[in-house]
Amino acid sequence: MAVIVQKYGGTSVGSLDRIANVARRVAARKDQGNDIVVVVSAMAGETDRLIALAKEIFPIPNDRELDVLISTGEQVSIALLAMTLERIGLKAKSYCGWQLPITTDSAFGAARVTNINTNRISEDLGNGYIVIIAGFQGVNDHGEITTLGRGGSDTSAVAVAAGLKADVCEIFTDVDGVYTTDPNIVPEARKIKTIAYEEMLEMASLGAKVLYIRAVEFAMRHKVPLIVRSSFNDNEGTLVTEESSDMEKESVRAVTCSTKEAKITFMGIPDVPGTASQLFMALAESSVVVDTIIQNSSEEGKTDISFTLPQSDLEKGLEICRGVREILGADRLSGSKDMAKVSIIGLGMRSHTGVASTMFAALAREGINIEMISTSEIKISCVIKRKYAELAVRVLHDVFELEKPL
Amino acid sequence: MAVIVQKYGGTSVGSLDRIANVARRVAARKDQGNDIVVVVSAMAGETDRLIALAKEIFPIPNDRELDVLISTGEQVSIALLAMTLERIGLKAKSYCGWQLPITTDSAFGAARVTNINTNRISEDLGNGYIVIIAGFQGVNDHGEITTLGRGGSDTSAVAVAAGLKADVCEIFTDVDGVYTTDPNIVPEARKIKTIAYEEMLEMASLGAKVLYIRAVEFAMRHKVPLIVRSSFNDNEGTLVTEESSDMEKESVRAVTCSTKEAKITFMGIPDVPGTASQLFMALAESSVVVDTIIQNSSEEGKTDISFTLPQSDLEKGLEICRGVREILGADRLSGSKDMAKVSIIGLGMRSHTGVASTMFAALAREGINIEMISTSEIKISCVIKRKYAELAVRVLHDVFELEKPL
Repeated sequence: MAVIVQKYGGTSVGSLDRIANVARRVAARKDQGNDIVVVVSAMAGETDRLIALAKEIFPIPNDRELDVLISTGEQVSIALLAMTLERIGLKAKSYCGWQLPITTDSAFGAARVTNINTNRISEDLGNGYIVIIAGFQGVNDHGEITTLGRGGSDTSAVAVAAGLKADVCEIFTDVDGVYTTDPNIVPEARKIKTIAYEEMLEMASLGAKVLYIRAVEFAMRHKVPLIVRSSFNDNEGTLVTEESSDMEKESVRAVTCSTKEAKITFMGIPDVPGTASQLFMALAESSVVVDTIIQNSSEEGKTDISFTLPQSDLEKGLEICRGVREILGADRLSGSKDMAKVSIIGLGMRSHTGVASTMFAALAREGINIEMISTSEIKISCVIKRKYAELAVRVLHDVFELEKPL
Repeated sequence: MAVIVQKYGGTSVGSLDRIANVARRVAARKDQGNDIVVVVSAMAGETDRLIALAKEIFPIPNDRELDVLISTGEQVSIALLAMTLERIGLKAKSYCGWQLPITTDSAFGAARVTNINTNRISEDLGNGYIVIIAGFQGVNDHGEITTLGRGGSDTSAVAVAAGLKADVCEIFTDVDGVYTTDPNIVPEARKIKTIAYEEMLEMASLGAKVLYIRAVEFAMRHKVPLIVRSSFNDNEGTLVTEESSDMEKESVRAVTCSTKEAKITFMGIPDVPGTASQLFMALAESSVVVDTIIQNSSEEGKTDISFTLPQSDLEKGLEICRGVREILGADRLSGSKDMAKVSIIGLGMRSHTGVASTMFAALAREGINIEMISTSEIKISCVIKRKYAELAVRVLHDVFELEKPL
């Protein structure tokens, strides 16, 4: 008998019909003799509706109260699923984050799970209940409701699985696994059978939306095997697990692309120590998240600095840069939106040589100019003009032969 | 400086505009130097929407999970009101029932408040916060969410006021006080300035919808002065408080009418001990709430029993009666819906004589047949055909001169 944690996202519980579908899946797993814990998100659209309501009052709502508001979305889902399970003859009990409790820090809207008490869950499982838990939410040490931020329900599920030492954590979503790249861009994209936590982490950081970074980090830290699969069919999903030697056979395992990037460039900054720190401190103070940073020394003791940031932060970033430009003594400042970052990822890069040059050559052949490059042990990212994004993904998927099964 | 508890019902917080209106009222009271605690209901229609959703799954939803579901309504309201208050420059903090906690028994859907912890409220008030509390909800000893049933937010407000030893508990609603009768039936109905808890309790029991029984009981037990007033204007409301000699000057203070009554009659039951108990035990076991009961001895050792019950329970009640009819040996069984109960209420009845005969004579003059009568120290109720209900109310309001100010 296995302990299985299942997580269903907003689309999977988006209507009473879909909740009934989830209940049937849960029942089938229970019938096989497993102990089942289900973590659910808010019904699709509900969180956005509540946020919109709050923003109608004031564009930047009080963060403590926003969490009180939006955590109701998951609370509705758990009750409806519990009722539906009971309806088909199963014993089920729901819990909000505070009821277990799932303890977090006090960063409203982006809280981190610090502890999870699984006593109630274990007791209920022992009594034959299916336990249903509200994802996305927790409670801080002062008894205040917190939420975990985007993808928070994935994190909740992984945290519960870790706490219970569950055999597996199944993440049900609207795609049936992790693909070598976005099948909407490359129809030949292949579903990956098994992927390492590290690879998944890079993919999540670099634009793949199927799993969220924190959930993968948490799973990696606690060695929770994750399965990503669809709640709308019975296809085998993708297993996210510890690295194995098999995974290194391929140099590149996936191509990702993030298209909501912007770039800011300072030209001709006097090359004296402390310049970069002044600039990036000012940006950090305004919560502008800077991604790739490139600094080139030019002639005459001057330097150029470029960095990427989310497109939505470009105006704010430029304003801050204008403010520090004089202090830095820069000749010119420019910003461009419509940038993209295309990346290749694979544990095999550690041992395979020539991966980077293959990538750059493939892009060059198509006349795609690489504006910035950043690398890690298991990924290479290139910042390019957004209009080339889809082309670049197709070219890279092709040159590394990702459509071919292992 | 006074401590004031204000309760706003669903209509008063039915939209963001109305919540803004509530916030302005709260701010005005705060500006006068008072400590303010606000108890709110769910936005109008929200609780019904959630119940409908649950009933779509199954007509009789699991009661534990239904409370998890519907308690989200108030949680949304508290967050929106807190944000709105902050928006206009006030410090505000919201609490769900479990956060204080407001402890209740485990009767999901109709829980009773057993304790209320006001530590957090007092601390926040001391720090200049307006404290906002979700009405209608609590938590049982097992940490499960409960709701208090119809009018539960009134009870929450009174419980909070009692716990805080507040100077007053203001119940804001969509009418501007307690009237001598329903102004929709009698346009001359007069707003009552001050009414005793006992009178209010009878009125609530007998069809006046302005306040709920449990809230009045709670207020009476803890001597919490209640003010009933409108959230849409600044009219003075009605004070519900302890009995004073003034109140006895009038014999009758109000006329109420409940039109959703039905009647069941057994004719010719052998008059032996234990007959009535068998019947009413069977009804009680099926949770049919019986109201007025009349038993007449007829000739030849036979007796007739009639009783009223809510119209919605008539079919269920009749089915049970058919089941016990043979056991009782009754000659005939009949049921009629479309009954009404019209009542007159007043502390003064204790000392004024002839009130009952005045009532009966007034109804008789209009040809209204009285089918059943029940009395207490401070009220007389007559069950009549429903079609006469409005006429009876007008006649009684007139004969006891309730339109005349004191």
